[in-house]
Amino acid sequence: MSKPVCAIVGIGPGNGASFARKFDNEGYAVALLSRSTDYSNELARELSDAKAYACDASDPTAVVAAFEQVENELGAVDTLIYNAGSGSWKNVEEITPEEFELGWRINTLGALVSSQQVIPAMKQAGTGNIIFIGATASLRGVPMTAGFAPAKAAQRILAQSMAKHLWPQGIHVAVMIIDGGIRAPGTARSNGADKLEPDDIALAAHYLTTQPQSAWSFEVDVRPMLEKW
Amino acid sequence: MSKPVCAIVGIGPGNGASFARKFDNEGYAVALLSRSTDYSNELARELSDAKAYACDASDPTAVVAAFEQVENELGAVDTLIYNAGSGSWKNVEEITPEEFELGWRINTLGALVSSQQVIPAMKQAGTGNIIFIGATASLRGVPMTAGFAPAKAAQRILAQSMAKHLWPQGIHVAVMIIDGGIRAPGTARSNGADKLEPDDIALAAHYLTTQPQSAWSFEVDVRPMLEKW
Amino acid sequence: MSKPVCAIVGIGPGNGASFARKFDNEGYAVALLSRSTDYSNELARELSDAKAYACDASDPTAVVAAFEQVENELGAVDTLIYNAGSGSWKNVEEITPEEFELGWRINTLGALVSSQQVIPAMKQAGTGNIIFIGATASLRGVPMTAGFAPAKAAQRILAQSMAKHLWPQGIHVAVMIIDGGIRAPGTARSNGADKLEPDDIALAAHYLTTQPQSAWSFEVDVRPMLEKW
Amino acid sequence: MSKPVCAIVGIGPGNGASFARKFDNEGYAVALLSRSTDYSNELARELSDAKAYACDASDPTAVVAAFEQVENELGAVDTLIYNAGSGSWKNVEEITPEEFELGWRINTLGALVSSQQVIPAMKQAGTGNIIFIGATASLRGVPMTAGFAPAKAAQRILAQSMAKHLWPQGIHVAVMIIDGGIRAPGTARSNGADKLEPDDIALAAHYLTTQPQSAWSFEVDVRPMLEKW
Repeated sequence: MSKPVCAIVGIGPGNGASFARKFDNEGYAVALLSRSTDYSNELARELSDAKAYACDASDPTAVVAAFEQVENELGAVDTLIYNAGSGSWKNVEEITPEEFELGWRINTLGALVSSQQVIPAMKQAGTGNIIFIGATASLRGVPMTAGFAPAKAAQRILAQSMAKHLWPQGIHVAVMIIDGGIRAPGTARSNGADKLEPDDIALAAHYLTTQPQSAWSFEVDVRPMLEKW
Repeated sequence: MSKPVCAIVGIGPGNGASFARKFDNEGYAVALLSRSTDYSNELARELSDAKAYACDASDPTAVVAAFEQVENELGAVDTLIYNAGSGSWKNVEEITPEEFELGWRINTLGALVSSQQVIPAMKQAGTGNIIFIGATASLRGVPMTAGFAPAKAAQRILAQSMAKHLWPQGIHVAVMIIDGGIRAPGTARSNGADKLEPDDIALAAHYLTTQPQSAWSFEVDVRPMLEKW
Repeated sequence: MSKPVCAIVGIGPGNGASFARKFDNEGYAVALLSRSTDYSNELARELSDAKAYACDASDPTAVVAAFEQVENELGAVDTLIYNAGSGSWKNVEEITPEEFELGWRINTLGALVSSQQVIPAMKQAGTGNIIFIGATASLRGVPMTAGFAPAKAAQRILAQSMAKHLWPQGIHVAVMIIDGGIRAPGTARSNGADKLEPDDIALAAHYLTTQPQSAWSFEVDVRPMLEKW
Repeated sequence: MSKPVCAIVGIGPGNGASFARKFDNEGYAVALLSRSTDYSNELARELSDAKAYACDASDPTAVVAAFEQVENELGAVDTLIYNAGSGSWKNVEEITPEEFELGWRINTLGALVSSQQVIPAMKQAGTGNIIFIGATASLRGVPMTAGFAPAKAAQRILAQSMAKHLWPQGIHVAVMIIDGGIRAPGTARSNGADKLEPDDIALAAHYLTTQPQSAWSFEVDVRPMLEKW
């Protein structure tokens, strides 16, 4: 019997790699989608059953093409983790319309288009998971998140609209609200838990995919023990 | 002494016309910005001091050009009311990336770019008002608002980021959450108050511009007495 | 024709006095309810048509008796402003169950019981206003608001339950979220607007009572221009 | 080595029993606290290491006494699940101050006092879990939840104040938002997942106690796949 497929959009040595390792460990075939495949190819070699795909998440055409390739090569996607994200740290006076648009393309539009690629097969299977990796910025804006916060807020409400539409069809849509700094790869793991550890974020994401249908979570916040909030 | 200038983006015979009439009555010179000027020209003739400007709010270049013209002809804008809005009523499976983008351009990007045109003069004056006309959809998504809700959520959080940055400089940024159906122009005014009356929405918008600096509101919801919520 | 009656629960030289002065100016007969009448008697003499009533808002029996007296002497209440509030500044380890209960009695139970005294006549009249003076603490708790935040959160959601029940009957229930420090009586009015001015809070409260039925607000935040939020 | 102790306040054949069974299975000694011990004694016999304690959660004196007994007999509590809850289904006109107070005593005051009994030992241990079983009513009030919603809103914000104070000391405070009807004991388990299954709620509660310190959740919603929300 074939393995379930997990597609992760947005692969870097932080969260993306941790999602990949976790789902690889859990017996999934893992598709690694990212703009550049320099790192993801390396990561794929380290995993037992993973493959890297070039995919600029901000470009719908590229997203469509990449998911088509994933489905052809690995099969229908069971779990989509949308981890692509970026944000300029600028206020309303500094941000250009182009930067504002790019943030929205990566955080919001890419999440929609990626989801649209996997929904049909999930509906047919009557099961599936779509998890958006969000941020506290989705819940409140501050001066320097004039671009990032609106994009994340849009992503979160998109997830809510999707959840209300897709849950009854067996597709578990959820959003994780990452609240806090994330430990940078290569730095020492903090004992005091003042930073989010990517492996622990991945644990929480995987947990969501194991929830029974009678008690699904839509929105889960994660933050370090020592975070000020 | 010259009149203060109120620029309204999004003019139709509903809310847009009511905003225009209210600020005209209150002694403002009123700039009416809308894609087509068929209706706004007619409205301008009805008002004491108003002028229509063609402006596709979804197109940054057009927005920049229109506000330049407004400033040249009427002077620096004191009050911006961003009323442009539109939304497809579609779920995540039905909406196209193009429709999704258009909703974001009109509801979110246009709000940013319009604001950016008026902020410099407001900063110089140390005073000004920017009011976004929002919707309950900004706070929660339902299946059929896969496009509209994310765009409105982004608009609301953009306003919050802007408010935290601009309030200390004397610019009152606020968002009105319209919750309920709006009485269509030409239909009888409801006595039972089951629909929002555009003139009453305009009253609330104007009120925001009169608040003293020690007690500014950021977010004001308005809904009819009989609304289910 | 008799004047409309405004009952204000919680009278001190700050917000309470400003509410009283504003509604007095607007032509209301004003009932001043507070635990001690030392200050409220003095205030009543200063106003054109006001009367002080002793009323411990935390004690339902006292609240019932005071409102009975108000109705007998001034007539049915048109506008209730529930301004009683207090809070210990303690964390979960420091606060005693007695302090926790007292905060709830003043902020929450008193708001319920006061409302229950005025609702019957408002229903009969098909009109009326009930405004709770809330706080940002109703929306989020911090370590030192273990008692205050829960009491304010309960008050806010009580207002929401009441609004959904009473709006269709013509009674405008609303909550004001006071966000920021309030200028202490006797201190200089801040030009920089870093504190809330009680008179300006009163302006916002009175505005709520003037909204037309087609566009009522439920929740209105007010904060100074310079507030960090 | 002694087992960790889980204290559950509010034991019935639904959620309470499921929490008890789950933590019993996971190797905890389980303290079952409820007003009547008729059912909890029966449940204790069914479990491998559990004991029933009479405790009226609405009465601080009773709560203090019960937790003292638990600590003496089973040892310091590692995990507290506050599951006591009740609510009258009444609007603001129907609810009596007594009913309103009782709801607050059970849902809010009992949660505070129970927590205060276990915090000192948790602080000393530098670890522990406190989980409140909340409800969607904590986030919004409707006409018939004039008593229930304020009590649950207060409970949720209390949890937030506690979390911000206790997390840095190693105590994981969290609140579960139960959204939907719960399967009644003895009825058939729904395949369509239109009701929450108590065993699945217990799974989510236990999961919270296993989260690593770098990625703790504060607020987790659970609802059935088919729930309308």
